[in-house]
Order: sequence, then C-alpha cells, then structure tokens
Amino acid sequence: MINERELAAAIRELEEILGSRLSTHKSIREHHSRDESWHEAKLPDAVVLAQSTTDVCGALAICNKYRIPVTPFGTGTGVEGGVVAQAGGITIDVSGLNDILEVHAEDMDCRIQAGVTREQLNEHLRDTGLFFSVDPGANASLGGMAATRASGTNSVRYGTMRENVLSLVVVLADGSLVTTGGRSRKSAAGYDLTRLFIGSEGTLGIIVELTLKLQGRPEAVSAARVYFDDVDGAVDTAIASIQSGIPVARVELLDAMQMRAINEYSKTDYPEKVALFLEFHGSEASVAEQANRFGEICSDYGGSDFEWTSFEEERREMWDARHSAAYATMAIRPNAKVYATDVCVPISSLAACIRETREDVETNSELTTFCLGHIGDGNFHYVFLIDEDSSEEKRQVTEISERLVSRAIRMGGTCTGEHGIGIGKVKYLNEELGDNAVALMKSVKCAIDPAGILNPGKVLNCVGSEK
Amino acid sequence: MINERELAAAIRELEEILGSRLSTHKSIREHHSRDESWHEAKLPDAVVLAQSTTDVCGALAICNKYRIPVTPFGTGTGVEGGVVAQAGGITIDVSGLNDILEVHAEDMDCRIQAGVTREQLNEHLRDTGLFFSVDPGANASLGGMAATRASGTNSVRYGTMRENVLSLVVVLADGSLVTTGGRSRKSAAGYDLTRLFIGSEGTLGIIVELTLKLQGRPEAVSAARVYFDDVDGAVDTAIASIQSGIPVARVELLDAMQMRAINEYSKTDYPEKVALFLEFHGSEASVAEQANRFGEICSDYGGSDFEWTSFEEERREMWDARHSAAYATMAIRPNAKVYATDVCVPISSLAACIRETREDVETNSELTTFCLGHIGDGNFHYVFLIDEDSSEEKRQVTEISERLVSRAIRMGGTCTGEHGIGIGKVKYLNEELGDNAVALMKSVKCAIDPAGILNPGKVLNCVGSEK
Repeated sequence: MINERELAAAIRELEEILGSRLSTHKSIREHHSRDESWHEAKLPDAVVLAQSTTDVCGALAICNKYRIPVTPFGTGTGVEGGVVAQAGGITIDVSGLNDILEVHAEDMDCRIQAGVTREQLNEHLRDTGLFFSVDPGANASLGGMAATRASGTNSVRYGTMRENVLSLVVVLADGSLVTTGGRSRKSAAGYDLTRLFIGSEGTLGIIVELTLKLQGRPEAVSAARVYFDDVDGAVDTAIASIQSGIPVARVELLDAMQMRAINEYSKTDYPEKVALFLEFHGSEASVAEQANRFGEICSDYGGSDFEWTSFEEERREMWDARHSAAYATMAIRPNAKVYATDVCVPISSLAACIRETREDVETNSELTTFCLGHIGDGNFHYVFLIDEDSSEEKRQVTEISERLVSRAIRMGGTCTGEHGIGIGKVKYLNEELGDNAVALMKSVKCAIDPAGILNPGKVLNCVGSEK
Repeated sequence: MINERELAAAIRELEEILGSRLSTHKSIREHHSRDESWHEAKLPDAVVLAQSTTDVCGALAICNKYRIPVTPFGTGTGVEGGVVAQAGGITIDVSGLNDILEVHAEDMDCRIQAGVTREQLNEHLRDTGLFFSVDPGANASLGGMAATRASGTNSVRYGTMRENVLSLVVVLADGSLVTTGGRSRKSAAGYDLTRLFIGSEGTLGIIVELTLKLQGRPEAVSAARVYFDDVDGAVDTAIASIQSGIPVARVELLDAMQMRAINEYSKTDYPEKVALFLEFHGSEASVAEQANRFGEICSDYGGSDFEWTSFEEERREMWDARHSAAYATMAIRPNAKVYATDVCVPISSLAACIRETREDVETNSELTTFCLGHIGDGNFHYVFLIDEDSSEEKRQVTEISERLVSRAIRMGGTCTGEHGIGIGKVKYLNEELGDNAVALMKSVKCAIDPAGILNPGKVLNCVGSEK
C-alpha cells in the first residue's frame, strides 16, 4: 500500500523537476491505465510524460526515495497487462523519447531512444537498404518490445528481440544509468546485462536507449499463400518445409475465422479457409527455388490454390493484413476484450498441441475463437473475445488457457512465446521453470530493485528485499 | 584466505560422499592448476572428479557450508585463466559428465551433459544430417564453452554460444539445481537465466547440462582461399563481402607468420602470405554463386591465387589446419606461453584497429606475433609467445594489450570477443562498461553466491556479500 503522505511529497518533488511533464489529469491517467487486452484497468496516481533520459532518472530517484511504485509505459499495445498500474503510483511514459540517434549503415546497426516505434524506425531506414526485422502486430515502441522480449513474423529467420539488440541504456530504480555494452557483434565481457533486461518487463529498470542490429534488405523477396481444409494440413506443411531445410523468412498460420476477420477489416477477398502466409528471402533464383520447393511440399499435405508472387504491392497488402490481425479480431465483437494465449512448443509437438487445444475449445466453450501463429517457431495464439462483465466467459477461457499452458509445458514448451508474463502468467512461472528458478529470479530482482518499486506485481510475486 | 581447519573438515566430508572421486594427488592438482595460456598456475587443495550432477550438488553444498573457494574445470583449454584455482580450495572437474542424453533430430536440438566436447557431439551427430556449429579452436567441453560465451569460425553465420543454447541446468553455490528453460525456440517467460549463466565463467553456478540448438548440414558447401600482400587488403575484402550481403559461413584471417606456423605444424604447403580462409553454405547453385561473387571482390583489393573447392577432403584439411592454429603457434617456441589478445570491434573500424595495433606491435616489441581472426564478426587475435620468466616480455605485451583494449573500446568494441574475462581482463571491465554496470554485476553476483565461493577472482573483483 502506498503511504498517501509520501505519495503527495513525491508528486510535489516530481512537479518541481518536471513541471507540466507531470500530469494528474484523469484522461491522461485513464489512457495509461491499461493495455489492449482483457486485463483490468488500474489508474496510476500521476503520469510522467518523459521527454529525456534525465526526466526518467530524476523521476525514478524521487520515487525510489519515497518508495512509490513505478510503471513504465511505451505505446500501451501489450496484451499481458504489463503497463497496468497494478499498485497505483507513478507511470513513466517514455514515448516522448523518440529520437533516432545514429544509424551506422556500414556496421548494420543503429542507436535509438526507447520510444521510437518499429514503423518509425523502418520508415527512417527506407533509403539505406537496411531494415529492422522484429515485427509484432502492433506498432510498438522498441523499448517496450525489448522489455517484453517481443518477436513476430520474421523471427523464424532473423530472431527475436533477444538476438537483435546489441546493447541498452537502462535507468535503475535509484535513478542511476547503466550501459550494458557496445556495438561489437559479440562480446564475452562479463555478465550478459543486455539479455538480463530484455524480457524483464520493466521490473529491473526502465530502458531509455537501444543499440539494434539491422538486416540487409534481401536482393529478392517472394511471398506465397496456400489454403487447407483443416489446420493439421497447414501445420504439417510448415513443419515439413522447416525440417527439409527451406530457409523460410516468414511462415504464418491463420485459421478460417481469422481469415474472415481479416477480409472484413482489411477489405481483402482471400478464401476464408485455413491459410499459410509465407515469405522467402534471397537472390532472384533462390526465392523462386524456395517457393517452388515449398509448393511441392504443400501438395503432399492437401494444400490448394498455392500461389506465389514477387510483386511488392501484393506482398505489402498481405502483410499489412497479417499485422492488423489483432485489430481485425477486435472488430468482430466491438465491446469485448481480447484474451490471447501464447504458448510456444518444439515444432515436432506443434500439430498435437494445436489439435488438443482445438478439441478442448470446441468441447468447453461456445466463444468464437481465432487461431494464428508464427508456426516456424512453434508459437501460436488462440484468441478469444470476452465480455469483461461476464464471469462465465472469463472462467471458460481461463480454464482453457490453464490447460493449454500445462500441455505446452509438458511438451517441453513455454507459457509465453512473445507476449511476456505481465500480470496474466505470473502463476505459471513456477510450473514452467520450477521453484528454484523462480527463487533465483526473485533474488536477482531484490538485488537490483531492493525497494521493489519497479512494476510491482508483474513477472514475479515479489515485493523487494527492504519491505 | 581459507581457514585451514574448515578446509580439512570440508575435505573429510567430501571424501565421505565421493570416495576416490576426491583427489589430493599432486599430479591431479597440477593438471588442474592452469589453462593453456600464460596465466600463472595455482594449485587447488583437492579436486572433485565428478561423475554425476549429484556429485556436483553434494560437493558445492559442502564447500558452501565451509566457505571453501570452488573452481569449475572442463577441458582446461581456456586462455584467460578461468580454471586457475586463484584462491586454492576445491576444483570441480565436470569432464566425467559426458553423456549425450537426447537428440531430437526433428526439432534440431539435443540435451547433453556439460563435459561433452564439441568434437564428441559432432561425431555423435554424424548420421543425423545435423551439426553443432560453435567451434573454438580447442576441442573444449560444451559446459566450458557456455561458461565463457565461446564462439569460433562459424559464428558469423550461426551465432555464438549465446544464440545456440536453448537452456541449461546449473548447480548453484548452495548445491541446489536450477533449470533455466525448456526446448522451445523462443520464450518470453521471466528473466533470461540461460543468458545470465552463459558467459558468467563459473562465478554464478556450475553448468551440468545443456540443451543446444543444432543446425542442418547445408545441401552444399564450398570453401575458398585467397592471398594478399598485406593484412589491409584481406580485411577490406572481408568487409566488402559482408557489406555486399554475401552470406559467408566462415571468413578467417591468417597473417603470414600464422600461415608459416600452420604449414610447419599441419604439414601443409599453403603460400606463406596473408590469407583468407572462407566457406559458403547453401544449395549447389548458391555456393558457386557466393564463391564467384566473393572472387570478384577479391580482385578489387589485390587478392591473388583465389581458388575455391567443394571437395570435402580439401576443405577438411584446411579447417583442421585452422583449428590447430593455436597449437601451431605454440610449437614455434616450445617453452613459451601463449598470450592472446581478443578484441572485437564494429566491422567498419576493423581495418583501422588492426593497422594501429600492428604499428604499435612493430614499434614496441621485438616478439614474434601471429595475427588471426574471425573477421566477419570484427574479432581478431594478436598472439604472442612469451617467456614466463621474462618480466620484460610480459611488460611489453601487457602494455600493447592495454593499448589495444582501449583502442577497441574507443571504437565501440569490447576487450574480449570470445575468450572471456577470466583473471586477465578484470581490470578492463570498468573501462568498457562503466562503474555502474560493473556494480550491477557485483550485486547480481552477491545475490546468487552470497558467500562468494564460486570461482573467486574471476570476472569481478568481488568477495560475496557475507564476508
């Protein structure tokens, strides 16, 4: 619980250093009270609209002194409640830290502030022949993407945030700044602080700067679509193509309901059947070869209407539609909230994991579901639209989700491939990694944030070592 | 300082649980007193020849109780003194944990014990169409390779240990076991404990099991060699080929002295000039195309005698020679000790970094030097052979090394690309990462190993929080 007198003192001191960059307006607090998911909103007491690293350092030093909970906020596009101000206190919004500081085209890296979004960065890189590969559906901030260890459609080939961040600048709970590395491609110098902060969801520090790896735009790109009568055929095709060594750049599963939602939202007219969306990168000859080899595998598994194109306009339409899938889903039941599962399993278990989940869903819920996934990584989402006020819908979905998580863990997988733990999956961490691993995480958390002010209630049930 | 009475009590208890797997023989202790480098030997008081995870857990619990320093040992092939028993105490040798536990060919992963060596694993995988890609020169243990965040010739394409470990089983200082993850390709579940232990050099725990990513053997492989009059031409060629997007699998620089050493040691008859050794992976058509495109770039930079081959025998001879480079160097001055520098810089600074270092070496030392590097990553080694008893040689080389590290850091690079910090580079960590980052590492170390028993004196100047 926050001590009201200390909160008032903290807000007074924050106002002194920040002026109008500290807001207690209801609308601003409401905007910062939730993400895009079903997780219940909680209002912060005030919001810091940071414009610089100095703002973040100053705000944290004050909050740490008064032991006021701090919630970091980027674009608010997460889906596990990571930005919900669970314990009230101060939300620090870093979206104003949006400068692209340096692009080193010859080294294929760049240095940016944490509030820069992935689309902003790629727009900036347009004439360099380079791009940043990690692409969650939302136009998220790169700081937030690092904090949640995000991935997306390109990760099967180019890796997740884990593989694409060279180093970070992070503000610790006490307001001090840490730089976790340089620009070299590899280093064996000490503990991997970069990876320690990636995926820590704002519980160990607030990321203010990132040095990112960039990828060269491939000489040629081909995209393909193919349709199936059922999910099994699509999954088996994807697995066979990965196992046969085709270096797919993207391989996305979308079920018939998802395709219908996409057609309605993106005004496309794709067949409303189970689909795979694919992309191949390489030389002209190589992308044609990859697409053709993939086409042959498709026909073994009942794929139909296989078509590939290297026409950019058509590719762009297809990937825009794919990136809008979450928004397309939301549009189906406008006042409902999104509940997205996110397991990831070894690819040999993927077909069974999806099949058993579908059976569970069909048996135990009347809700409309959407299934889509980055299936080259073994990662898929069952997405539900639930009525916030219906405890029955919440119960159904929560139980299905719990069984799905246990199924994935039993298969050697994880409860979250890319969305993070947030509030929603704290309870699964012990089941997945064991009590000793969670205890170890807690001791790291207590060492780095002894007052426990950073994003309390997220990732770990941990209140800091000094309380 | 070790309390002699407590040491005796610990050894008695260790003998009780381990029997003959605890050794105090002089020859065994000597074997475990040093690695393959110039770092001064220090004898452990006793050596645990562990045969199981249970042995490691039991030994650590006892050492932790009596606060006896513990040094982990794999093959002893490191070069920064990581296995030197700096404070005496107990060395735990895990080379007896050498079972390959599971190979999941369909998921391209495997689970092994920490003492398995890279050659043993690849021999085991021979008929699966898969291989493990990380290949330091020595036939190191995979536990040791994870502990030092090792890399090698394939890392430019396939990544280092950081990218090729899916999860670990680690014994903590108190003897408890932690599993850091599962087998899925990606996960956003909590802090990245896997990466926290990779590169921690035995200071946070002892790795006993690893789940590793495997790579599919490429359909076709071509290898190439090309020679230059000077290092600059070779480096510029490598940089231009990487920047032009040729997906080289290996690109290794060897200077004329290194080539001479290799010819003598491996009975080869390569021209004794500056060389690039290369390899290209892909389809038949693609490896030919890559080799030809590379050949064109070579001629722009004065490369001569460019030849490429897809003949396996010839490739094998070439890479065996490359992997033996360190041993070839040692054979040049048999009683001398190896002092290997290991900086890594952004690739656009590589030519300048090598050139300035060569000028420094030529001006300030009469020692014979060997230069070689994984230059696709920006990582290179100047290797010196020094007389252990000559303080003058040590002084010269240490000063050159210090200037080299400062140069690399100034260029955005690191003091160690792949050898680790060990004893030799503790002093550079603050210069490279800043005081706050090092303080953060120390707080993590103290939280995980509060008695400070694990590999004291390595990576950090840190004695634990309880002392």
